[in-house]
Amino acid sequence: MKRTLYNADHEAYRETVREFLAREVEPHKDEWDRQHWIDREVFARAAKAGVYALQVGEAYGGAGESDYRYRMIVCEEVARINALSFGLTVSLQDDLVLHYLLDLTNDEQKQRWLPGFASGEIIGSLAMTEPGTGSDLRGIRTTAKRDGDNWIINGQKTFISSGIMSDVVVLAARTGNEGGSGDLSLFVVERDTPGFERGRQLEKIGLPAQDTSELFFNNAVVPAENLLGEEGRGLQYLMSHLPRERLGVSAKAMATTRAIFDITAEYCRQRNAFGRPLTANQHIRFELAEMATEIDVAEAYVDKSVLAYNSGELTPIDAAKGKWFVSELQKRVIDRCLQLHGGYGYMAEYPVARAFVDTRIQTIYGGTTEIMKEIIGRDIASGT
Amino acid sequence: MKRTLYNADHEAYRETVREFLAREVEPHKDEWDRQHWIDREVFARAAKAGVYALQVGEAYGGAGESDYRYRMIVCEEVARINALSFGLTVSLQDDLVLHYLLDLTNDEQKQRWLPGFASGEIIGSLAMTEPGTGSDLRGIRTTAKRDGDNWIINGQKTFISSGIMSDVVVLAARTGNEGGSGDLSLFVVERDTPGFERGRQLEKIGLPAQDTSELFFNNAVVPAENLLGEEGRGLQYLMSHLPRERLGVSAKAMATTRAIFDITAEYCRQRNAFGRPLTANQHIRFELAEMATEIDVAEAYVDKSVLAYNSGELTPIDAAKGKWFVSELQKRVIDRCLQLHGGYGYMAEYPVARAFVDTRIQTIYGGTTEIMKEIIGRDIASGT
Amino acid sequence: MKRTLYNADHEAYRETVREFLAREVEPHKDEWDRQHWIDREVFARAAKAGVYALQVGEAYGGAGESDYRYRMIVCEEVARINALSFGLTVSLQDDLVLHYLLDLTNDEQKQRWLPGFASGEIIGSLAMTEPGTGSDLRGIRTTAKRDGDNWIINGQKTFISSGIMSDVVVLAARTGNEGGSGDLSLFVVERDTPGFERGRQLEKIGLPAQDTSELFFNNAVVPAENLLGEEGRGLQYLMSHLPRERLGVSAKAMATTRAIFDITAEYCRQRNAFGRPLTANQHIRFELAEMATEIDVAEAYVDKSVLAYNSGELTPIDAAKGKWFVSELQKRVIDRCLQLHGGYGYMAEYPVARAFVDTRIQTIYGGTTEIMKEIIGRDIASGT
Amino acid sequence: MKRTLYNADHEAYRETVREFLAREVEPHKDEWDRQHWIDREVFARAAKAGVYALQVGEAYGGAGESDYRYRMIVCEEVARINALSFGLTVSLQDDLVLHYLLDLTNDEQKQRWLPGFASGEIIGSLAMTEPGTGSDLRGIRTTAKRDGDNWIINGQKTFISSGIMSDVVVLAARTGNEGGSGDLSLFVVERDTPGFERGRQLEKIGLPAQDTSELFFNNAVVPAENLLGEEGRGLQYLMSHLPRERLGVSAKAMATTRAIFDITAEYCRQRNAFGRPLTANQHIRFELAEMATEIDVAEAYVDKSVLAYNSGELTPIDAAKGKWFVSELQKRVIDRCLQLHGGYGYMAEYPVARAFVDTRIQTIYGGTTEIMKEIIGRDIASGT
Repeated sequence: MKRTLYNADHEAYRETVREFLAREVEPHKDEWDRQHWIDREVFARAAKAGVYALQVGEAYGGAGESDYRYRMIVCEEVARINALSFGLTVSLQDDLVLHYLLDLTNDEQKQRWLPGFASGEIIGSLAMTEPGTGSDLRGIRTTAKRDGDNWIINGQKTFISSGIMSDVVVLAARTGNEGGSGDLSLFVVERDTPGFERGRQLEKIGLPAQDTSELFFNNAVVPAENLLGEEGRGLQYLMSHLPRERLGVSAKAMATTRAIFDITAEYCRQRNAFGRPLTANQHIRFELAEMATEIDVAEAYVDKSVLAYNSGELTPIDAAKGKWFVSELQKRVIDRCLQLHGGYGYMAEYPVARAFVDTRIQTIYGGTTEIMKEIIGRDIASGT
Repeated sequence: MKRTLYNADHEAYRETVREFLAREVEPHKDEWDRQHWIDREVFARAAKAGVYALQVGEAYGGAGESDYRYRMIVCEEVARINALSFGLTVSLQDDLVLHYLLDLTNDEQKQRWLPGFASGEIIGSLAMTEPGTGSDLRGIRTTAKRDGDNWIINGQKTFISSGIMSDVVVLAARTGNEGGSGDLSLFVVERDTPGFERGRQLEKIGLPAQDTSELFFNNAVVPAENLLGEEGRGLQYLMSHLPRERLGVSAKAMATTRAIFDITAEYCRQRNAFGRPLTANQHIRFELAEMATEIDVAEAYVDKSVLAYNSGELTPIDAAKGKWFVSELQKRVIDRCLQLHGGYGYMAEYPVARAFVDTRIQTIYGGTTEIMKEIIGRDIASGT
Repeated sequence: MKRTLYNADHEAYRETVREFLAREVEPHKDEWDRQHWIDREVFARAAKAGVYALQVGEAYGGAGESDYRYRMIVCEEVARINALSFGLTVSLQDDLVLHYLLDLTNDEQKQRWLPGFASGEIIGSLAMTEPGTGSDLRGIRTTAKRDGDNWIINGQKTFISSGIMSDVVVLAARTGNEGGSGDLSLFVVERDTPGFERGRQLEKIGLPAQDTSELFFNNAVVPAENLLGEEGRGLQYLMSHLPRERLGVSAKAMATTRAIFDITAEYCRQRNAFGRPLTANQHIRFELAEMATEIDVAEAYVDKSVLAYNSGELTPIDAAKGKWFVSELQKRVIDRCLQLHGGYGYMAEYPVARAFVDTRIQTIYGGTTEIMKEIIGRDIASGT
Repeated sequence: MKRTLYNADHEAYRETVREFLAREVEPHKDEWDRQHWIDREVFARAAKAGVYALQVGEAYGGAGESDYRYRMIVCEEVARINALSFGLTVSLQDDLVLHYLLDLTNDEQKQRWLPGFASGEIIGSLAMTEPGTGSDLRGIRTTAKRDGDNWIINGQKTFISSGIMSDVVVLAARTGNEGGSGDLSLFVVERDTPGFERGRQLEKIGLPAQDTSELFFNNAVVPAENLLGEEGRGLQYLMSHLPRERLGVSAKAMATTRAIFDITAEYCRQRNAFGRPLTANQHIRFELAEMATEIDVAEAYVDKSVLAYNSGELTPIDAAKGKWFVSELQKRVIDRCLQLHGGYGYMAEYPVARAFVDTRIQTIYGGTTEIMKEIIGRDIASGT
């Protein structure tokens, strides 16, 4: 169905993004994969080109643009060139870290950090997960104890995206002991903080250029002015940012799913087997028809979610529905697309093969499919 | 997500419909099921109450209202009381027969038939399918041969909804022999036409009150002025009405799916097993969460389709996507809801049990799921 | 794959069964469906012909044959003629009631009841389920209190197969109050017991000829000698009969699934659409290929289960695996077969349509799919 | 259910295999993955230990053991240590190359090659697939033209497992031009054949240690005595070896599926989330229960297939059923197991993560799932 999400401004922005990616990302992405590292300069260039960090206020060097449709367009264009490690790093800033900073910082903190984000010179990460906690925020064991003008932090985090690259880490730590919801607080831990060390880059089955690592805090000394928001409200802050985080996963999933589908449909039209195009097979036409339908149906929901988010009405439950549904659709569609490629689908040079490994994490991070269903299910069970 | 489809006018209409159904349909529907027949008077009352035939022009006693959202509301309210045989009969008029008449009749024909539809005194049916043709319109073998001022019709139709009750039958017959697309024409065959006989009411596994039957034409004499539109354009007319027909199935499917889900969720909250509500089981919460998500996602697509239809932009392909996807979702959801009811789900007195048998036809009529996928798949294969 | 389950004796028995069903069941089954009742005489004839109750010892007029392969053959032949109401009634005797009696009766009780079963003159039922208990045996509230030489029984049972037809009811009632596993005992309640009344025949969506009803016990007086086994061991007895009950469902499911598949494959070979057989469609060939494979795979498991049962080694867990897997396969296959029939699949005269409604209970009774998974899952969780 | 496939001899053999793998494979497999190459010596050691090539006759230094259960045990033990690149290389010899040689060689050829296979010093490959042919053997374009005592071979092969490592290549080439089934012949192309060159090692998303490459033949000169079997019977030879090839995929799939399931079940029992083991979640217990059931059911079929193969009765159709069903099960189970591991499932150090990428090829090679369904579907359509 004709998509009604975008207007001419968005489409003009798409051209900008597309041109930037063709010039600054596409020629380098394979090298980044091989070296297991994205050259940092591209983020500064991307921020300057307006490819991300648009939502930083003009006072701090940004565009003050909060319309999520611009993010959606970035997702779509990144997906079109299958630069998923780059895309995830950008998403981490725009859908997660930056939003914590925009929403929770005081003026002094804004002055310190936002210009760096607006210029792409500061990269952030978000450190919630610990070995053994998974999605269970109440199980966090990292502690922050007040000591004069500082907080002394002890603990360990894992699966931290951009853990090694990041200049500032938004960290969740326990500042109370009651076991209630008031135990957690958020801190910004900066590069070169004494007692803060980064572990090795974890070896994943996909997203090779994107760094994921462990972080260690051994009596790390964080100044009091790096507390984010109020002490003891960390859980609440984490909760309030879930819709954006989940929408971010849905947006990436939707964009990548359609991109891989499009190249697969084209592949099936072009490739011959048994003397005729693959699409001469009814089974393959049915596969394509099913995927095209499911993608269109999901897109209607995601586009509606984007508008709801823009107007401040996207609930955590509705975002959870999109998160699991679209990421599972992504998994299913990419798997089927790989299959339609036959042996070529297993070759790393084919986009579908890379997407297969790069996206397998989507149903896991940002709250697993199971956690999403639990959240939605409890809401239904409560009958409200 | 907050639904944005309706405005206050629609919601006011919903009250009218709900009141009508509570008064005129709900008290009688079980009796109609038992007698395998819906008392005709209800259709006249429904038309007068504005529950259907709204789209007939004011000149012919209707409301001239073509906004499909009013239809959608009727589907939702009918589904809420699980009056699916009644709902299907109404849908047959509003989504099919009446639209052929509105679009294809000349002034004289409008005068003859539309007032009767507007008042609910004329019921129509659509006779395309023949034994052995299924969805294959080009396989139609019923013939119409011109004989002076009449057409002489010979052939047999089957699976005709409201075949016995209908006063006028919109019939597809072959007026040419070239085997091309110009062979078919449409006729209105009226009650008491010589040579037109109705077969027995077919025994179905569901929709007991809704009549489905065979029709026989043995040298049936139909006056020339009952030709609908132009000779030889029947296939084209049938094709052009597919989006509405498919949207009609999606609308019913969407409404029934949500209605059955809602009573099932309530059942799971209320019913105890092993000393606690069913919703205390994580598996059941997950089942409900999955269904709630899939329903919301599909609804986004259906609502978008309704608006696209209203603005004349719903393509046959997009309507086909909705038709198969939502009717398959319906099948899947109702089956799971039945399962959640345990033994009660097999008892005919439970709405979910009735819905299970009443809706099994939805993936079949109006073009099977397989036909829809074929249509969509060919479109993708063509690369346009 | 070549099936190795049967030898020549079994195949000879198959001929007997097939001949009996062709003569005594097939000509009457539609009438039984219409009258919602199976004429009792057929059971006596069937028992005499050796179609069921083979396992009753020779001393009581039976054949003393415990090889489950003979039961499997009956399931297959009943399925071939789609006489599922008859088949279920026979299964109720052979897979459930009769086994309780064979295993738990003392000599005096054997004398009283077994000859009647062997001759098909006594029909039994098993009364466990109560309104509100479902699969939760510990939730049973029917009580039996000792009063001199009698037990006084109060309570209500529901969903009792052959509840109205049965001459003896194997009843689970609470004889203790500790809430532990020693609370339940089993009784045989005979027809005309004072205080025992049968409710109405429940209206189901399928299995019309098979009676399912509620049973009421108001100070029903059951003689002490009708206690089955020892007082307080009811739960244990119920547990020990689960493998046979579950195998019985798997056997019926397997047989019906293959029978419906076979007629559907033949239908697809014979029926033309768009000028060629349905099997000219790759999609339909794939559907058939998938079903044929899944059926063969499941059959390997069921056949293995039959042999394991024969040698006394079929565990409740292994039987639970077969129960849910094969009954879910049955549901899935029959639904797909119905779809392949197009509009004819919705017509009650087609075997696939009847099977669709008749078998929907299979994933529910005998322990729902969910209960089976719970049992298996707990076993895995225990790590034993 | 108690497995009945093996006797004491097989279990003794299992100990041998297990000991060998622990000593010679497990300590090296990560290094092989890193270097994208398996050190050749391990194959000689494996052959000497009887881990493969058992079926070579005693006259040529083998054990003359054709019982497929020994192969099955190797598959199971390889899967237990997740050494899938090694396992595939061994399978390539035992399930494919070696069987062509055993069945099609004359005495002279046996003398030349079999002792090398028996000692593990010769590694073979099978070269059928060409760029653009996929599963379509009739589309092979590589030609072999007779020239005196030689055949001159021109063409290109791709996706050749062990293409670089192999000493002898069993090659399918076109020796006729009629486009019929008599056009293909098989040849053994030996290392250092003039005009035969190997392409680069293809970069796959999994199976890093296993080499897959392109092969090029530019006027390659192959002596006439390297023709395998008779000229023009290549297609027939390829067809006749399909059951073994397909069974080989089923065997590996079955073994790996169970191995990954077992470690996942253990993981779920051991790992805590939200303060209790994962198995305290009903959803996770259900996941495990479903997988355990499906694995047991599939195993019944595979074990039956092994026995049928041993007795020469495994048909290509039955082998095709197992091939697609079990490899698809494998894909589904491993994907679910990865999900149950949460973020750890995406880390390459976890066996489930490696298995996820290593096994994605299983539904593709050896005939895709779609080809298998086509073969089975045509058989059903033919009604034989």
